[in-house]
Amino acid sequence: MEWEDLARELSQQTDSKIVLLVMDGVGGLPADGKSELEAARKPHLDALAKAAVCGVSDPVMMGITPGSGPAHLALFGYDPLKFQLGRGILEALGSGVEVGRDDLVARGNFATVKGGLVADRRAGRIPTEENARICGYLNEHLPRHAGVEIRVFPGKEHRFVARFTAEGLSDALSDADPQSEGKAPIPTMPLGLEASKASEVVNRFLADVAAVLKGEAKANAALLRGFSKFPSIPTMQELFKLRPAAVANYPMYKGLAKLLGMEVIGVGGETADLFDALEKNWADHDFFYVHYKKTDSTGEDGKFDAKVAAIEALDPFIPRLLALKPDVLVVTADHSTPSSLKCHSWHPNPFLLVSPTAGVDDVAVFTERACAKGLLGRFRSISAMPLMLAHALKLQKYGA
Amino acid sequence: MEWEDLARELSQQTDSKIVLLVMDGVGGLPADGKSELEAARKPHLDALAKAAVCGVSDPVMMGITPGSGPAHLALFGYDPLKFQLGRGILEALGSGVEVGRDDLVARGNFATVKGGLVADRRAGRIPTEENARICGYLNEHLPRHAGVEIRVFPGKEHRFVARFTAEGLSDALSDADPQSEGKAPIPTMPLGLEASKASEVVNRFLADVAAVLKGEAKANAALLRGFSKFPSIPTMQELFKLRPAAVANYPMYKGLAKLLGMEVIGVGGETADLFDALEKNWADHDFFYVHYKKTDSTGEDGKFDAKVAAIEALDPFIPRLLALKPDVLVVTADHSTPSSLKCHSWHPNPFLLVSPTAGVDDVAVFTERACAKGLLGRFRSISAMPLMLAHALKLQKYGA
Repeated sequence: MEWEDLARELSQQTDSKIVLLVMDGVGGLPADGKSELEAARKPHLDALAKAAVCGVSDPVMMGITPGSGPAHLALFGYDPLKFQLGRGILEALGSGVEVGRDDLVARGNFATVKGGLVADRRAGRIPTEENARICGYLNEHLPRHAGVEIRVFPGKEHRFVARFTAEGLSDALSDADPQSEGKAPIPTMPLGLEASKASEVVNRFLADVAAVLKGEAKANAALLRGFSKFPSIPTMQELFKLRPAAVANYPMYKGLAKLLGMEVIGVGGETADLFDALEKNWADHDFFYVHYKKTDSTGEDGKFDAKVAAIEALDPFIPRLLALKPDVLVVTADHSTPSSLKCHSWHPNPFLLVSPTAGVDDVAVFTERACAKGLLGRFRSISAMPLMLAHALKLQKYGA
Repeated sequence: MEWEDLARELSQQTDSKIVLLVMDGVGGLPADGKSELEAARKPHLDALAKAAVCGVSDPVMMGITPGSGPAHLALFGYDPLKFQLGRGILEALGSGVEVGRDDLVARGNFATVKGGLVADRRAGRIPTEENARICGYLNEHLPRHAGVEIRVFPGKEHRFVARFTAEGLSDALSDADPQSEGKAPIPTMPLGLEASKASEVVNRFLADVAAVLKGEAKANAALLRGFSKFPSIPTMQELFKLRPAAVANYPMYKGLAKLLGMEVIGVGGETADLFDALEKNWADHDFFYVHYKKTDSTGEDGKFDAKVAAIEALDPFIPRLLALKPDVLVVTADHSTPSSLKCHSWHPNPFLLVSPTAGVDDVAVFTERACAKGLLGRFRSISAMPLMLAHALKLQKYGA
């Protein structure tokens, strides 16, 4: 029996409430002997760690650096090695693009092609309004082909989402993106026999775009990557009998949450917005995923001090969270983003869990090395959901 | 390759002796800052922890609360998600009822039905002798039906085991027990097409019992649950080349032990009985499972102080165990039973292992939070058996 089957069998709906606060990429590495978490002044998070049981968790397995998709899937109780989500589908859902079972979606860039070579992969980061105008023009002027419907949806700057609707479109396609400038645009290639129709549809679209946009100074070509279809994945309602909500600002995280059946509570980019939304929607859900992005983006930028500041900026909001009296509160990350590496990493996430049934350990601060000595030990992130459900008394006994 | 295949291939018979002392449900949660283990005075167990390597173990996986069956299976080296045992089979085997391949067994209650409704699910907890009289009467007077043999076996108070012998009886049957009083008795329902014969046999039996016992004041009906057949499970001899023995008092644990091929050494309810039996049978076996129940039953009753006392009551017997000079001694639990929860829980079990090859760690007391810092870390209980076999030098090298 697998964890999903166990979850379906043992989970029960109750009134208890769970909050999963994801400080994206918060784990880091020391500079001058202290990691970002060790350098930050964060009295409320440290008090939480003292009241909590702590541990460290590996998103996928030891040594594996995950993307945001697999890292979040694991936290939500889905095996990231079993459920693989294309970035295109996450971007599409997060941007509010409706995606059905016959749809194939991809992330797109408008690009500048000169003399047959990609001169700028981002078309000079054209303004977002310009992007909207171009997408509108394409949707109106792209030639129609029988049995296929295509729409493009503008994103920020040069980014867009392409949606292809037709029967029998496979997403087993290579990226149509040379990845670097000075090279010729490349077509997509089918990665299996079943994708020959999809590759023809996509490559004809790329040629059509170049023809329709040939008069544009900057955005005169499209690059596509992350082809994906709506995956077959059970919802959190089905698996865990939760009424889940996602409080998040960025499209990717909102898209993933929607895919898993969460109600997406979109918020602005201010830290206070997260807690305003949490308070406002507290009565309507029993599981809240709250996504704090700044610890990751500062880490990706390689800014140690800015990441420390991002941790310190979140800390004063912890009392507002506690005032809601969640039955289970977990603070952790999806993956680590050490500012010294300027990217996601494989280091385990610090993890704390507060609940009346948590027990005690001797961890007194919320840092990587303190959490590693906690009662929870080292575990895979996919265990976070069974742990949260158990402490919320939402799991029945297994066997007699 | 799976662990079972590895075990078959690598295990070897040797003269070394292993003792697995299960303090049922010993793990707990703090009251006034101390768990039951932290509050107990237990110098011998603490001295063991000091001499041992320690860790904490999850019976099934993090967050999952197991029944006694799956929790013990894991400790004995069987994947509890692969081998699922009905409670009926465990109760039957533990009560000394012979169960063969064509037998279907169930746990029964005698109940009182009045005006078509269950007035008392336990028939006023009739005396055990009364139960024996009624079972004898039933075995003599139940009408015979061609191709089916049925016997009932008395247990304590109102409990009995029913055994149905016929070809093609499936155990895919729902419980014939309304679970609460004031409701009508319910028949069993087949949970698959293959169980239609079994459901007919069982429901005819329930009607026959009601007819035969209609003159009884209290025990005038039967409720049945936990239908099960003899499972297909390899023995500990087959997998581990052990000559295993179980020293236990309660039917469930004796039943499970018998199922796995252990010789069951039944003992009385006194703590000293366990150690008397161990000493007496020491020469005849190389693996001893010793089951101490009081730490669980006091936890289930929600009695913190009584659970502390149960821990303290076992402690003075540890020197008698050590005097036998086992090559490997493990003290742990099947699952936790915090007295604050009054039931089994998902919290990991403290675990200690003493052996000349154990190595050292800094754990000096046998408690949940101390063990969590031990050299063994946090692991699934199914690793207990490979660890015990290894330290007993009963596992050969894997690969060249």
